[in-house]
Amino acid sequence: MGGIKVLENLKKEVFKANLDLVKHNLVVLTWGNVSGIDREKGLIVIKPSGVSYDKMKASDMVVVDLEGNIVEGDLRPSSDTPTHIELYKKYLDIGGVVHTHSSFATSWAQAKRDIPSYGTTHADTFYGPVPCTRSLNSEEIKNEYEKNTGLVIIETLTDRKIEELSVPGIIIASHGPFAWGESPSKAVLNAVVLEEVAKMAMRTENLNSEITPIPSELQDKHYFRKHGTNAYYGQDSIKIK
Amino acid sequence: MGGIKVLENLKKEVFKANLDLVKHNLVVLTWGNVSGIDREKGLIVIKPSGVSYDKMKASDMVVVDLEGNIVEGDLRPSSDTPTHIELYKKYLDIGGVVHTHSSFATSWAQAKRDIPSYGTTHADTFYGPVPCTRSLNSEEIKNEYEKNTGLVIIETLTDRKIEELSVPGIIIASHGPFAWGESPSKAVLNAVVLEEVAKMAMRTENLNSEITPIPSELQDKHYFRKHGTNAYYGQDSIKIK
Amino acid sequence: MGGIKVLENLKKEVFKANLDLVKHNLVVLTWGNVSGIDREKGLIVIKPSGVSYDKMKASDMVVVDLEGNIVEGDLRPSSDTPTHIELYKKYLDIGGVVHTHSSFATSWAQAKRDIPSYGTTHADTFYGPVPCTRSLNSEEIKNEYEKNTGLVIIETLTDRKIEELSVPGIIIASHGPFAWGESPSKAVLNAVVLEEVAKMAMRTENLNSEITPIPSELQDKHYFRKHGTNAYYGQDSIKIK
Amino acid sequence: MGGIKVLENLKKEVFKANLDLVKHNLVVLTWGNVSGIDREKGLIVIKPSGVSYDKMKASDMVVVDLEGNIVEGDLRPSSDTPTHIELYKKYLDIGGVVHTHSSFATSWAQAKRDIPSYGTTHADTFYGPVPCTRSLNSEEIKNEYEKNTGLVIIETLTDRKIEELSVPGIIIASHGPFAWGESPSKAVLNAVVLEEVAKMAMRTENLNSEITPIPSELQDKHYFRKHGTNAYYGQDSIKIK
Repeated sequence: MGGIKVLENLKKEVFKANLDLVKHNLVVLTWGNVSGIDREKGLIVIKPSGVSYDKMKASDMVVVDLEGNIVEGDLRPSSDTPTHIELYKKYLDIGGVVHTHSSFATSWAQAKRDIPSYGTTHADTFYGPVPCTRSLNSEEIKNEYEKNTGLVIIETLTDRKIEELSVPGIIIASHGPFAWGESPSKAVLNAVVLEEVAKMAMRTENLNSEITPIPSELQDKHYFRKHGTNAYYGQDSIKIK
Repeated sequence: MGGIKVLENLKKEVFKANLDLVKHNLVVLTWGNVSGIDREKGLIVIKPSGVSYDKMKASDMVVVDLEGNIVEGDLRPSSDTPTHIELYKKYLDIGGVVHTHSSFATSWAQAKRDIPSYGTTHADTFYGPVPCTRSLNSEEIKNEYEKNTGLVIIETLTDRKIEELSVPGIIIASHGPFAWGESPSKAVLNAVVLEEVAKMAMRTENLNSEITPIPSELQDKHYFRKHGTNAYYGQDSIKIK
Repeated sequence: MGGIKVLENLKKEVFKANLDLVKHNLVVLTWGNVSGIDREKGLIVIKPSGVSYDKMKASDMVVVDLEGNIVEGDLRPSSDTPTHIELYKKYLDIGGVVHTHSSFATSWAQAKRDIPSYGTTHADTFYGPVPCTRSLNSEEIKNEYEKNTGLVIIETLTDRKIEELSVPGIIIASHGPFAWGESPSKAVLNAVVLEEVAKMAMRTENLNSEITPIPSELQDKHYFRKHGTNAYYGQDSIKIK
Repeated sequence: MGGIKVLENLKKEVFKANLDLVKHNLVVLTWGNVSGIDREKGLIVIKPSGVSYDKMKASDMVVVDLEGNIVEGDLRPSSDTPTHIELYKKYLDIGGVVHTHSSFATSWAQAKRDIPSYGTTHADTFYGPVPCTRSLNSEEIKNEYEKNTGLVIIETLTDRKIEELSVPGIIIASHGPFAWGESPSKAVLNAVVLEEVAKMAMRTENLNSEITPIPSELQDKHYFRKHGTNAYYGQDSIKIK
């Protein structure tokens, strides 16, 4: 009974996080999805595929296990579910994952470029540039495409020696952004910041084509103002491992 | 009686689709129009010309036949009616047509350039670039201009061997976008996507002037994720012929 | 009595037209003003200077004569009143004048460039490019600046042989747009179109730096679809002289 | 008692000014803060750190003295409080300070460029370009970062011989804008104008890469139309010292 209750709460949280995508202007039509995980049960709650945001109910959220089997729910889960699963399996400290086609982050993804850290807005949330993955090859596209999308995210973070919570977002070449966090709502906040820094980075380059990323001291200062044991922004600090 | 009932429903559907243009920020002032067709009766329901969206009623929708004669309605139909008619006559599987001056798609039309497929957002809806028609010549502009606008759309799709439902939109050189679909509401959705991909494609080029269109594998993967017998996006699949 | 009634109606019309500037996102803070004229009485109704749009009432509108004397009203009229007066004195067929600092039109004004006619959206309302005035000289700036702003508008239209209602708007170098029309509400519509074509023209050049203005046949076709004795757009035609 | 009353009113004013940042689209998430000062008591009222705008109450405002000690309030004050304090200590005629990460002003800050005065919208509020500070050095970033942010603002105004109320805003290199004014609400208005002129200046350069700042006569005319003893904009004049 208590177990079911936990999932009910997670469904509500994931439902609300999906609506927050709309509130923050990150979605057009039905694009975008948020999931959350119950680590004890090993179950993921995720938005159903292609359902209109204004008709969606908390009870429409779909429950899947870490192999992608539908455990509960009448609707088909988001087609991006296998990507979410790979991230949850690899990164044990994340509790929520977001995917959107938000306009500026997607434009950087389509341009196949990392988003450089040009200012403190970026540095407050992302410890260094937001990486753009390599393009998937023909084989990766044809078979298990969504799973391979998850794997290329992991490959990118691994190759660049990035801790997942210090850079809680990425852009997939020719596709769009994924973001994550300790919870579904924090993942949404990170997706909001990702879109905003993508927008400002484009305009920064438009204003000064010679601009270079901020120095490491400023990156450190702003990131650790908000994260870790010496954080002093907000009413409580966000601990990083 | 049943016949009239069908048209009443179509009027409501076309009316709602016109309001959806406003909801999706695709129109300024009275620009833009949606039509729908009753294939059995061979009758088209279309927005009246130059009527303000906030005063328009479902009963203001105008019914015309495929020769452009007004069959029902007190108002003059959209001045673009002859363009809609050409499309309905040529493409028997479309049920709705939309015309807007949405800002980014119109900017590409004014730039007289195809909108390249730079990412999966584009590939999900348009199987290849959104074509820009050639400019109309003096004679085509002076006589039967709106009809000739329809004919140049058909010419463009024909010359490029494009099936109308696999690329459900186009931009008219120096003018703006048309979109279509199996129904008026689907035509509106396609117009929404067209504007969004037009916006992101411009930004993509601004971020990387060397960028090239996505490879055909990725185009195929995303298009057929949403269309055809193997579609697995959404709660049901959209069949393509 | 009837005379007073006419001015009360004009006050309401001018008040509503001012609020429409806000509705159409043409104003920031208190920037922007609309006036209307009662030709029989030779009296102008105009927005008070620097008053917040959400506190403004119809009764706050100020009545001035064609010499700029306040005839009615407790508030100071818009500081741009002398510009409006010059336009009303010169152009007897205009009934409303609008000034805004709308973002894209002002950017063209600051760039000191005419807005070229790149498409039918432009051609529907403006018969040719929207001209940018020359810069005022030191003397014109120091003394009777607002009156001289009106005079440089007239100089520009005269030098370029433009009929005022065929190009119902202009941009003042380093300043921003003025628009006008047969009535205050039509002047507002023209200001809306001016902002929209300014936005799309900038994006058109961004997408194709080699683009040239539309040919005269297309300009003629679209302008005369909406204006003059052969107009066929809308439910009634707008007569041009 | 009267003393407490004054602070209660200032809390309400500062609270409202913070909400006005949201209303004017200057903030994303919890970014941005407004403070006000009671000069008699030497006490500053400022937004709490990292609190969501839609949950914030007037009673959440924090009172600090000019050494940064919390005098009243249960929440931690904005992490930018030391910057505000430096400005209040140096400039005795300012009554409110605003910090935002508004998108266009921040993009100029990230591009490390002054915002040139390209038009009368700029000249109405800022007497000359909006300066961008130098970058802070490593030492200034590591220790007392927020205080040093205040000091580099002062250094910039001093070096350029700028009176604080004639250019009531600045952008911090790689960070974002600060604005100020005689009161919290006037500081917010100046932040709104700063964002708007930042937006239009970028577009002006995009439209004309050769454009130069406006001549001093036009700068003088517009600034003194709104400020000083000869002002004639609005219903009363804003006195400058």
